[in-house]
Amino acid sequence: MPVNAKQVVAKQVIDDLKELRALTADANGAQRVAWTATWQKARDWFEKKLDGLPVEHHLDAAGNRWVTLRGESPKALILGSHLDSVPNGGWLDGALGVTAALGVLRRIAEQYNGIPPVTIRLVDWADEEGARFGRSLFGSSAFAGTIHIEDERRRTDRDGISLETALRECGIDIEKIGDAQREQENAAAYLELHIEQGPVLERLGLPLGVVLGTKGVERHAITFFGQEAHSGSTPMRDRRDALAAAAKLALEIRSIANKHKDSVCTMGSVKTVPGIVTAVVGRCETTLDQRDLDADVLATMYREAQEASRRFAAEEHCTVEWSRIWNIEPVPFHPELIELCEEAVRETSRVAHPLPSGPLHDAAEVARAGIPTVMLFTQSLQGISHNKIEDTKEEHLLLAIEALDRLATKTMAWIATQA
Amino acid sequence: MPVNAKQVVAKQVIDDLKELRALTADANGAQRVAWTATWQKARDWFEKKLDGLPVEHHLDAAGNRWVTLRGESPKALILGSHLDSVPNGGWLDGALGVTAALGVLRRIAEQYNGIPPVTIRLVDWADEEGARFGRSLFGSSAFAGTIHIEDERRRTDRDGISLETALRECGIDIEKIGDAQREQENAAAYLELHIEQGPVLERLGLPLGVVLGTKGVERHAITFFGQEAHSGSTPMRDRRDALAAAAKLALEIRSIANKHKDSVCTMGSVKTVPGIVTAVVGRCETTLDQRDLDADVLATMYREAQEASRRFAAEEHCTVEWSRIWNIEPVPFHPELIELCEEAVRETSRVAHPLPSGPLHDAAEVARAGIPTVMLFTQSLQGISHNKIEDTKEEHLLLAIEALDRLATKTMAWIATQA
Repeated sequence: MPVNAKQVVAKQVIDDLKELRALTADANGAQRVAWTATWQKARDWFEKKLDGLPVEHHLDAAGNRWVTLRGESPKALILGSHLDSVPNGGWLDGALGVTAALGVLRRIAEQYNGIPPVTIRLVDWADEEGARFGRSLFGSSAFAGTIHIEDERRRTDRDGISLETALRECGIDIEKIGDAQREQENAAAYLELHIEQGPVLERLGLPLGVVLGTKGVERHAITFFGQEAHSGSTPMRDRRDALAAAAKLALEIRSIANKHKDSVCTMGSVKTVPGIVTAVVGRCETTLDQRDLDADVLATMYREAQEASRRFAAEEHCTVEWSRIWNIEPVPFHPELIELCEEAVRETSRVAHPLPSGPLHDAAEVARAGIPTVMLFTQSLQGISHNKIEDTKEEHLLLAIEALDRLATKTMAWIATQA
Repeated sequence: MPVNAKQVVAKQVIDDLKELRALTADANGAQRVAWTATWQKARDWFEKKLDGLPVEHHLDAAGNRWVTLRGESPKALILGSHLDSVPNGGWLDGALGVTAALGVLRRIAEQYNGIPPVTIRLVDWADEEGARFGRSLFGSSAFAGTIHIEDERRRTDRDGISLETALRECGIDIEKIGDAQREQENAAAYLELHIEQGPVLERLGLPLGVVLGTKGVERHAITFFGQEAHSGSTPMRDRRDALAAAAKLALEIRSIANKHKDSVCTMGSVKTVPGIVTAVVGRCETTLDQRDLDADVLATMYREAQEASRRFAAEEHCTVEWSRIWNIEPVPFHPELIELCEEAVRETSRVAHPLPSGPLHDAAEVARAGIPTVMLFTQSLQGISHNKIEDTKEEHLLLAIEALDRLATKTMAWIATQA
């Protein structure tokens, strides 16, 4: 395929993205929150885009949309991402991956006159963001078989509407979401293009990055208990200041992270009780989020933070309690697909920079299901996402779509070589 | 007066306190919030206690109750405190000072057959706590002439009821509260007994303390501005973490305070924005409360905290903004009355420990009006006040009332020696 044809594919993807933005964003950003009318509008728009393509499409038991271009082999290359967004989100997060997959599928359908050597599937995962019910990676977890229906049944949105009810309104029976696992049949590889949502590629001046995997996460609530006391009458030496212990930990987690390349530790929330100007803090509630691609490093960081918190609590005559909010193991992507991705990126923009993904992605769930997976990142301006100002230079979007297209071609060939 | 008669005086005060508690406290503590029905009930109860005493009494233009036992000289010794409490408050905070003053007044009236050598006045200040409208020392500020009617007019409670309306319902015209300054006439000295509300006397094993003055206060809102960022995708080195800068300041203010004897610095409130587990803190709103009895020390601590905050903001690639919430200069008490108080305490319980008051008191406003003033503290168990568990051993209460009585006698004699 000549370069100018590739450019036509990529430009059409960007036109699609702009059309979707006009349809589903307002002055505050994208409003495609899963299980809402605007999300449904986005999905209906997407369904229309399939008109005239030689594909079958359907929603699976968890609400994921599958588009299948049947090939000579039933072995399937899957490309996908998600159309849902956070409230007041960006135009590219998720939508880029879905529209780019559609562009690649269009190109392959055309090139092979509707019957490529392997089957090509596109997936639009349902509710990657978890914005309404606090459960991210919903559809891909159902696909991977890592979801627990009992946990999901308890979820409600801010208005008290249950996830179960919201699913039913979209024609989904919560009892049957596990049936989405059937879509794993014949899955041979999964590719996902996504914006980086971080500042690394921009800092390096690179349009594209090869994703090594998604980092594991340890997420905890840590509460320090001291003694509320009058700010005027309580001498410094008599205080049991819960904030002081928390402040020490807020600083120490940075040293813990900095011992390792690419590790991150974040204290994102601090609440002080009683939290008034005239009282020493009696209780300080904090959160900790630790991530690394290496399970041993993650475990070490978790242990070090626990030890530090206990040390600081003792120093301040406080006590400390930990409560796990959530955790997930690191998910490394497939080594051979990482190599193919590096080739595709090098051919597109010379330098292939490998990096782990801090944010989670549906790709992690696909990889956990044992399906060879890799992701491609494109630069995010200022590293910002989940915000209406989220953006990527158009020249980088064009390169990203081209690289995904090259990677798809290479992966089709790779699938053909697999037993 | 023989010791057993003194004990009778003190025991009656404690009986009064218990009676008041039964009348105005519930399972959560004292509910004598100023400008409410329960406060009014406490004041009505107090008014009844005056029956049969040879006194005149009235409410002044700001709602302070004045009880006057006219003496041979119009020069007046004033004893007072406040009957109002915070919601869910303690039984002694304020009420001890008022009932003890009444006990002393009873004793003097009896001893001098209704006409002591100097005039004795008792004052129950209106709204010391500021619990409903956020304006502490209301009545004593009106008395001292330090109140600004325009500022007060803007105040509303949680239900949107204005202070002006609440005052009107208690028969007070906000325009005229400044007339309370007339009560300064002939004021020769002011004495106030109060619980310490701090742990110093308990730590030293002392029932009583001599108060040197009330500390000056610098109270500020300090906000650090960084950059909200994804906890997973933002490398440690690329962060502008507003919490990190705030945490450094939370620890540094302790070093700033510890350079000086009896100084205190408190960060009582920290708010993180967006304050979610998955985001680096973009904005961190903190409060700082600094107190010292020495104006130069206070100014130094304020300057050091400002400098430190700017240094930490720069280190973390953040910015910082300060906004003064409130401040008051230190108010040292009268040296000769401090001496008399030391004598009274030594005679009552051997050791006279001098200490500054961190909390503010109506006595500070009286002293600012130029009236010779001193306060007497009694031990607070665990240093706790503004809480239903606030308490003081009965043996210490008895000693405190006795010491106030001795101090009143000494001060009457001192007034007689003044020109």
